[in-house]
Amino acid sequence: VLIREVLVRTADGADYPVRVGPGALAELPLLLEERVGAHRYALIGDRRVVDHHGEAALALVRDAGMPVDAFTFPPGEARKNREEWARLTDALLAAGIGRDGCVLALGGGVTGDLAGFVAATYMRGIPAVQIPTSLVAMMDASVGGKTGVDVPRGKNLVGAFHPPRFVLADTRLARTLPVAERRQGLAEAVKHGAILDPDYLARIHGAGPALLAGDEEATAEAVARSVEIKAEVVGRDEREGGMRQVLNFGHTLAHALEAASGYGLAHGSAVAVGMVLEARLGEAVEVTDPGTADRIEEVLSSLGLPTRPDPGVDPERVVELLVHDKKARGGEPRFVLLDGIGRVHAGTGGTIRWAHPVPTGVVREVLAAGAAPAI
Amino acid sequence: VLIREVLVRTADGADYPVRVGPGALAELPLLLEERVGAHRYALIGDRRVVDHHGEAALALVRDAGMPVDAFTFPPGEARKNREEWARLTDALLAAGIGRDGCVLALGGGVTGDLAGFVAATYMRGIPAVQIPTSLVAMMDASVGGKTGVDVPRGKNLVGAFHPPRFVLADTRLARTLPVAERRQGLAEAVKHGAILDPDYLARIHGAGPALLAGDEEATAEAVARSVEIKAEVVGRDEREGGMRQVLNFGHTLAHALEAASGYGLAHGSAVAVGMVLEARLGEAVEVTDPGTADRIEEVLSSLGLPTRPDPGVDPERVVELLVHDKKARGGEPRFVLLDGIGRVHAGTGGTIRWAHPVPTGVVREVLAAGAAPAI
Repeated sequence: VLIREVLVRTADGADYPVRVGPGALAELPLLLEERVGAHRYALIGDRRVVDHHGEAALALVRDAGMPVDAFTFPPGEARKNREEWARLTDALLAAGIGRDGCVLALGGGVTGDLAGFVAATYMRGIPAVQIPTSLVAMMDASVGGKTGVDVPRGKNLVGAFHPPRFVLADTRLARTLPVAERRQGLAEAVKHGAILDPDYLARIHGAGPALLAGDEEATAEAVARSVEIKAEVVGRDEREGGMRQVLNFGHTLAHALEAASGYGLAHGSAVAVGMVLEARLGEAVEVTDPGTADRIEEVLSSLGLPTRPDPGVDPERVVELLVHDKKARGGEPRFVLLDGIGRVHAGTGGTIRWAHPVPTGVVREVLAAGAAPAI
Repeated sequence: VLIREVLVRTADGADYPVRVGPGALAELPLLLEERVGAHRYALIGDRRVVDHHGEAALALVRDAGMPVDAFTFPPGEARKNREEWARLTDALLAAGIGRDGCVLALGGGVTGDLAGFVAATYMRGIPAVQIPTSLVAMMDASVGGKTGVDVPRGKNLVGAFHPPRFVLADTRLARTLPVAERRQGLAEAVKHGAILDPDYLARIHGAGPALLAGDEEATAEAVARSVEIKAEVVGRDEREGGMRQVLNFGHTLAHALEAASGYGLAHGSAVAVGMVLEARLGEAVEVTDPGTADRIEEVLSSLGLPTRPDPGVDPERVVELLVHDKKARGGEPRFVLLDGIGRVHAGTGGTIRWAHPVPTGVVREVLAAGAAPAI
C-alpha cells in the first residue's frame, strides 16, 4: 500500500507531515510516539463518525499503551459554535486532561475546526492531530492550521491558527461516504487545479467517474495532489496576508451565495458556482482568458456539481452581501481572479495583489447572465 | 521625561517593545502608526478604568486621525470568563471591526487577559496592544503574551499565546492606585528579584516606602527592571516549556492557597506567602541556602505583604490541591526552588530541570511551621 507524505511548512519554520493513502490510520500510534508523546489523548468527533471509525482509532492508540478517551458531540455544522467548544473544553477538564494532553480530531471539516479550536485554546494550546474522514477535510480543511467556530454574525469569525502535529488522511475512511458528500470535496479539488495546475484539473476531469465511485487509488492520488497544492500555498503564507488568498478563488461569491440561501446551499456546491461566476467576472474585466469559465464549468458539470446560482436567489441580496464582505474596500467587492486555468492573476504594474476590485455593475451583469438557464 | 524601552523576543523571532515611564501613553498614536497601521481600533477596558483613563487614550488616537471606539465590561476578576469574551467579540463584530482592526487593552491583569483573548481569537487573531494601568499588569502580566479566561474548573484554563504589538506602561496611570493595589504588584517585583537579581531585591527593599507612596521615579525604575527580567526569561522560552517556569516561583503554593481560600485571598498576597513557603521547602530539602526564606520574608514584610498562610486555611486541603496541580507528577507536587537569592535551582546531574518534586510530608511540615505565628 502506497502512503504518500507531504510536508507543510508553518510560520515558525516547523514542518508537519500529511500522510495520505488507504490504511494510513495504522500509522497513528507510531506518529503519536514520534511527534507528540503526550500523556493523555482526547479523541474528539461527532457521534456518527465516532460510531463508524472511533473504535478502530481508539484501539490502535490503546493497544500501543497510550491512554485515550473519546469525547463526542452531535453531528452537524450547527454544532460548530462557542457553546459546543466550551462544553468539550469542560469535558476534557473534568476528565483531567492536562497540559501534556493532545487532541485527536476525527471527522470532517466541522470536527477539524471545532476540535482544533478546543486544542488551540486548552490551557493556552495543546497539540492537535487531524484525522479527516470526509473528502473535503482530507483535500483541504485539515491542512493549513485554521481552526474556529461560527457565531451568530457569521461563519468562522472566532478561531485561531493552530497547525496540527500531523495529518493522517486515510482514504479508506472515505470509502463509505455517500456520493453527494464526495462531490462536495471534489469542488475544492477543482479549485486547486483551476488556480495552480491545469494537468491536475484534466486528471480530475478524466477520473471523475472513478472519484465519484470511491475508487481508492484515484481518491488517494487526488487527495495527495490537492494536499501538495494547498501545502505549497500555505507554506508560503500561513496566515493569509498574501499568497494564501488565492485559495479564496470562488469563495467570495460562494460565501455570499451561502448566506443568501440561508445556508441551505452546501459549501462545495456554493464554491462550484462561485468559481464559474468569478471566472466570468475575470473574463468580463478582461483579465481572464476567454473560455476559462466554460472549461471550469465543463469539469464541474461532469462531476455533477452546480455551476449556476439557484434561480430563487436574489442577485441584489448577493451584491449587498459582497459589498459587506471582509475583503471589500470602499464599497467595491474584491475577488481572486485567474489569468487562465492554473494561473492566478497577481495584478499589474509590479505590486503583487491577489484580490482585485470588480465594479458592482459588472457583478450584477455576470449574476444576471449566470442565473439564466444554460443553453 | 525618561521613557525606557525593553525589547521582548517572541517565539517567531519578532521583537516587541515595552515602553515604560511617566507619560508613555503620549507615544500611543506614533507607535500605532509604526507598528500596527490598523483601519479601526477597539479600546477594551472595564468601566472603571475607561472612566478614569479612557478619554485620554481615545483622544490621543482620534486626534491622530485614527478611528477608535471603546468597548467596556463590568470591573472584577469574575468577568474574566467565556461569556464576557463572547459578548465583547460580538460587540466588535456588530461594530464592523474587521481583520484590519486592532484591540487596545486598557486596564489591569483581567483586562489584559480578557481583551488579549478577544484579539487572539477574533477572525483567527488580530493585533493587540497592551496598556496596563495596574502595577502588577505593568510589571508582569502585560509582558509575555499570555491571554485567557477563567472557567468553573479553574483560572486561566482557556486561552492563547498572543504577543502584543507593543506595551505602553505609563507609570503615571498608576499614580492614583490605592496603596493596597500597589502592594499587590510589588509581590511580583520581589519575585523577579528573588529569582534573578539580588541587587534589585535590595533596591525594592530600600525603595519600599517610595514605591508604596507612588513615587514616580521609583515606580518607573522598578517597572522597567521587572519588565527587563520578565522579558529576559520569556525571550528564552515564550511558551513555558523550559526556563519560563522560573516565573512560577511562589506560584504553585499561591494557587493552592488562593483556591483553598475560595479566591478570597488577593493574588499578590498569595504569591508573597507562596514565595516564603517555597523558599522554606527548598531549605528543608537542603537545596536552598539557609536564610533565603527569612530574607524574602523581611522584604515582603517591609512592604506590608503577608508571609504566612491565614490560620483559617486547612493545610490538608492545600496539600490535596497541590497533589492535583498541573505540574504534579505521580502524586508529588513540583516547585521552582531557589539555590539562594537571585539564583534558581536548575537541578543536579547535568539535565536542566526547573520544577522539582518535594515529598508531601515535607510540604505538610513547612505548612504547619509557616502557619505558626511569627516570633
